[in-house]
Amino acid sequence: MYNDYAYLLGSKRSCIRELFEYGCRRAAIVGRENIYDYSLGNPSMPAPDAVTETIRDLLQDTDPVALHGYTSAVGDAATRQAIADDLNERYAAGVRPENLFITGGAAPALTAVFRALSVTGAEVLALAPFFPEYRPFAEAAGLGFKVVAPDVPHFQIKLDALEAQLTENTVAIIVNSPNNPSGVVYTRETLTALAALLTKKANEYGHPIYIVSDEPYRELAYGGVEVPFIPTIYADTVVCYSYSKSLSLPGERIGYIYVPENATDSKNLYLAIAGAARAAGHVCAPSLWQKVIGRCTQLRPDLDAYDRNRTRLYNALTEMGYEMAQPDGAFYLFIKAPGGDANAFSERAKALDLLVVPGDDFGCPGYFRICYCVRPEMIEKSLPAFKALIG
Amino acid sequence: MYNDYAYLLGSKRSCIRELFEYGCRRAAIVGRENIYDYSLGNPSMPAPDAVTETIRDLLQDTDPVALHGYTSAVGDAATRQAIADDLNERYAAGVRPENLFITGGAAPALTAVFRALSVTGAEVLALAPFFPEYRPFAEAAGLGFKVVAPDVPHFQIKLDALEAQLTENTVAIIVNSPNNPSGVVYTRETLTALAALLTKKANEYGHPIYIVSDEPYRELAYGGVEVPFIPTIYADTVVCYSYSKSLSLPGERIGYIYVPENATDSKNLYLAIAGAARAAGHVCAPSLWQKVIGRCTQLRPDLDAYDRNRTRLYNALTEMGYEMAQPDGAFYLFIKAPGGDANAFSERAKALDLLVVPGDDFGCPGYFRICYCVRPEMIEKSLPAFKALIG
Repeated sequence: MYNDYAYLLGSKRSCIRELFEYGCRRAAIVGRENIYDYSLGNPSMPAPDAVTETIRDLLQDTDPVALHGYTSAVGDAATRQAIADDLNERYAAGVRPENLFITGGAAPALTAVFRALSVTGAEVLALAPFFPEYRPFAEAAGLGFKVVAPDVPHFQIKLDALEAQLTENTVAIIVNSPNNPSGVVYTRETLTALAALLTKKANEYGHPIYIVSDEPYRELAYGGVEVPFIPTIYADTVVCYSYSKSLSLPGERIGYIYVPENATDSKNLYLAIAGAARAAGHVCAPSLWQKVIGRCTQLRPDLDAYDRNRTRLYNALTEMGYEMAQPDGAFYLFIKAPGGDANAFSERAKALDLLVVPGDDFGCPGYFRICYCVRPEMIEKSLPAFKALIG
Repeated sequence: MYNDYAYLLGSKRSCIRELFEYGCRRAAIVGRENIYDYSLGNPSMPAPDAVTETIRDLLQDTDPVALHGYTSAVGDAATRQAIADDLNERYAAGVRPENLFITGGAAPALTAVFRALSVTGAEVLALAPFFPEYRPFAEAAGLGFKVVAPDVPHFQIKLDALEAQLTENTVAIIVNSPNNPSGVVYTRETLTALAALLTKKANEYGHPIYIVSDEPYRELAYGGVEVPFIPTIYADTVVCYSYSKSLSLPGERIGYIYVPENATDSKNLYLAIAGAARAAGHVCAPSLWQKVIGRCTQLRPDLDAYDRNRTRLYNALTEMGYEMAQPDGAFYLFIKAPGGDANAFSERAKALDLLVVPGDDFGCPGYFRICYCVRPEMIEKSLPAFKALIG
């Protein structure tokens, strides 16, 4: 007498989580310093001091009834204005506060958008490699879920494969750039070509094909690479943003949805998203965090430590002969498994206490992911294991 | 190309919200001090100072990466232990940390439980008067939703009406005591009789009938009245708790689900709830708030101000001739509308800038709700309007 699908989702552990917990058990035996755990995408940098200071200021200068009280379901008005101002300053995007809906992070944003787009027979497409939770989020919303083959070795978008998968039932494609797990940033050229294809097919089908743009890594890009703001390239884009990575607040659950004013059915889609969120138990995003964000929209992460890790690993591993796409963003490397079997590689790595995630769950067998949110000393100590595995 | 039901939920304003916003517009014209707004159930007491101090302590003594990082989906282990300890101390309830799932308040707790219980044809029953969001929460989860007639004038539970509504499809009944909107606390006698009925029918049907116990008002009871802890009376109870009211943190979204160890299918139901939460985008409850709760489980609200308002209004209104059930809990009075038509009464009240919520949305026409989380001066100024309306 319980829902089978919910039970399945609750009882099936993710491969990443399994690996992480294996690492914890091994650490108890051989010592944490002897485990090279690259499994979890958990920010290793603390939240900026300005965030802590802002909380202290709010506790000091704001009436607690207002500080901890309900905001409207769509979010605090001043915070939405601050987010809009920041986006407009950076991207000249024409964002208005009433186009923004503040959520408890990107995950409930995605599920609300999927439920809002769920009509009979509707399907969404994910571009491999993709964040594994997209599948249960979409399927639980009643959407079909299809995967577009990866564009190896550069991990941009394989447009011909995408076009072959598009049908009249396609209501959205999920885009995630900078990408988890590949670390790749889609170029303006890629996104412009994507927009052209979707516009052509939307006209052909007589209905919009939205891009659902999952952007927790938007601010994590290195070496001055451009991360284009997709709504300025393709209006039928719904942005799902999170401050988890950009402000190192993954547990605090704060982010937003942006439905551009000039998206097809903008106002009604926004209302459907609000209704879907309500049906999932959204009352408002955590109010203290909304007010923190309202004062911190201009903060950017200090990327130096991640960038040093990235460069060190990229250089060392490519020199050893590992192959990977250009990791311009997020905090992942997505590496071709020597021998071609990433599960076998991961098992061999485990035997050396090196934990890497096989790409299968990301829709991309034959590759493995490492997350470089780690201590630099761990990187140095782990390099011999990488060397031994390819030697 | 969007989901019609989600659109409906997003675009239809609640009667309470409409009234509140009407009040804001009127306040702009005649001044806030001349509006007697009893519409919204928003705590008017600030969070206890100890909560603010705990946040300051955590910012000082806890590594920010841990403080703001992901917890496991089920919640911080130390916080679950602290909640279990507190419940066991108060109710000798045998709660274990692994029976607790920390949520972003009671609303996502309820929606996760409903989705976990959603099997083909399943129905839940609500006992009038009831919190209006139960209906969209249940219906969006795919459950049938039926209403059991109110037990006027005492607003306990009308067991014969309940028995008549129970069928083989009934998987749960929703209990909310102290009750919104009636302010009534179900007695131990009521709950014991309810448990006996449900046990009998569950045996007859060969499957459990869970009580889903929505408990945001558990700590808000006056005059020493007992609020029985339902799992100690009926094991097949799933508790959905929120700190919104007890610690005046409604916007912060923190609460928990408790599935008793000895409930039918306890472990699998817990996993199904976890899976339903995951499918709705739950990653973890806000981590700072989890850690605050871990240190504040023993805090109780200071009820004096609410109790003074309650007593003043109850005495004044009953003296004028208004009739209502004994308001032993929460912060509501549920009053029989003079003339019998609560909508007409609410309209007449509006003309005097007195805002009260008709009972229709609570499944109880002919009554109106007032929330006494208000300034005492507002109560005094509003009494002549109440007098005029019954005069």
